[in-house]
Amino acid sequence: MTIEARFDFLPSLSAGRGIGLAAALALAGCATAPAVSPQSATAAAPTVPPAMQWLYGSGESAASSLQAYSAFRDHVLAAARARPAQSVVLAPGSTLEAPRFLACGDKPLAVILDVDETAIQNLGYEYDEAYRARSYDEGIWNRWEQTGANAVAPVPGAVDALSAVREAGVTVIFNSNRLTANAAQTQAALEAAGLGPARPGETLWLKGDIAPGSAKDPRRAAVATRFCVIAMAGDQLGDFSDLFNAEDLAVPRRRQAAASTPFAEMWGNGWFMLSNPVYGPSLQGDFDDVFPVDRRWSDQGGN
Amino acid sequence: MTIEARFDFLPSLSAGRGIGLAAALALAGCATAPAVSPQSATAAAPTVPPAMQWLYGSGESAASSLQAYSAFRDHVLAAARARPAQSVVLAPGSTLEAPRFLACGDKPLAVILDVDETAIQNLGYEYDEAYRARSYDEGIWNRWEQTGANAVAPVPGAVDALSAVREAGVTVIFNSNRLTANAAQTQAALEAAGLGPARPGETLWLKGDIAPGSAKDPRRAAVATRFCVIAMAGDQLGDFSDLFNAEDLAVPRRRQAAASTPFAEMWGNGWFMLSNPVYGPSLQGDFDDVFPVDRRWSDQGGN
Repeated sequence: MTIEARFDFLPSLSAGRGIGLAAALALAGCATAPAVSPQSATAAAPTVPPAMQWLYGSGESAASSLQAYSAFRDHVLAAARARPAQSVVLAPGSTLEAPRFLACGDKPLAVILDVDETAIQNLGYEYDEAYRARSYDEGIWNRWEQTGANAVAPVPGAVDALSAVREAGVTVIFNSNRLTANAAQTQAALEAAGLGPARPGETLWLKGDIAPGSAKDPRRAAVATRFCVIAMAGDQLGDFSDLFNAEDLAVPRRRQAAASTPFAEMWGNGWFMLSNPVYGPSLQGDFDDVFPVDRRWSDQGGN
Repeated sequence: MTIEARFDFLPSLSAGRGIGLAAALALAGCATAPAVSPQSATAAAPTVPPAMQWLYGSGESAASSLQAYSAFRDHVLAAARARPAQSVVLAPGSTLEAPRFLACGDKPLAVILDVDETAIQNLGYEYDEAYRARSYDEGIWNRWEQTGANAVAPVPGAVDALSAVREAGVTVIFNSNRLTANAAQTQAALEAAGLGPARPGETLWLKGDIAPGSAKDPRRAAVATRFCVIAMAGDQLGDFSDLFNAEDLAVPRRRQAAASTPFAEMWGNGWFMLSNPVYGPSLQGDFDDVFPVDRRWSDQGGN
């Protein structure tokens, strides 16, 4: 990393065309590793995966989240003055082809935010996972929820934005798939990061609340019965609608749906996306899913 | 990938807590791969690196760039009406500690954009690099510049935003580290993607123009002698100021500088960042660079 890191800073490569060595290793590793084995993986010196270098270490990702929270704050303050007729929460019966938004009536105003990699960065957990060259483990994540409250940091921009939103009289509600059993510790993590208050069952909704499972629509619907939701923020499409998590939704169609009318107009205008290339449903797809067949190219120079 | 992709869609994992299999492989691969060897790498079936799955395949990244370009468009249209006194280009002699912005006077208005992974996605090149499990190669990239014009796509949101900006009478200028020798082909790539016009030496500035090397400040300064620059967009900090590419700037300090006053206020307010976890100076840093020592955690459950 050190040599490549230095080269990345040199003018001759500072164009951003130099791929990180970690990325190159990951590329080679992806193609050669026969299977995931924490035992064998931890035998060699671990490196920081490139996506973690970007999300947790780069000024670029800090800029990206500051930009997202600046737009979030401006939108919420303007909407609080304008009192929109429509919520940004989809109504029951909506489909990706025919979505409909709930009406606001004269309900008090609220915003809904995801927690992990939207409001807080799980630095302690991701460090442990990367340092042990281990993949996601549900049991370890559960222990992280229980004991990691002091090893998180707020996503850049979140503290100031939530403070301004609350000053405008808008209620901040968190909708997370952390476990209800760990509600107190998740509340502690949010408040330690300066993002509170977060009160379980009031302004903090977790996995298992309202309905079983990770679907967030039932919790959004419950919040929408009491509030006019003027903005939502998340790092995964499921933080906005479970329609994007349909099992039969192919990767290219999922991207196309998010980038098409009417959803295209929502981004930065009621729906706010935080970039997270480290984990989640956004990380999937084979070559045919990710690279359109009419945009292929093959280098001829080396042959 | 298929199994994991399906699991990622299941409610039980749709929280975004499930790390993609490709990410897990990358993690294991990073820790086990002894070196990068296209020959050995291509011997096994390649997979799409997780950062490419996110950037080119996910609805999340499409949402992120649509959001960035929505803010870019709104800012430019408002600034075009307000005619700001200050440019968003730093003045000569600025430092990270004491930056100063150029005055606009009554110059005509312009915006400056980077090209690669800011205006266009280099789908053909990245496909070839990933499919051959190869890292960045300058010679191959040069051939890509020369022959890849029809294998690119616009970054989601860029076409509509640049169209609106031009309709408001604001000149769109590209500042890229592609080679001057390939100016005609880069112009063709931008125009094939629907982002033109781009005229070499007028609205398209490339590596070697004005001054040798990849530093973009000399080109920004040249543009600023004729235009009042009201917005800039890029995917690397060097697309805004070469100060962020100082060789002696440590990774944590680089992030802290981008996220601190006065630069923190620029993101979404004159400076617009497109998220790119696939390549560039943003991808660097060891564990101590990326993970603050006071935010470490170690799972005790397994011991």
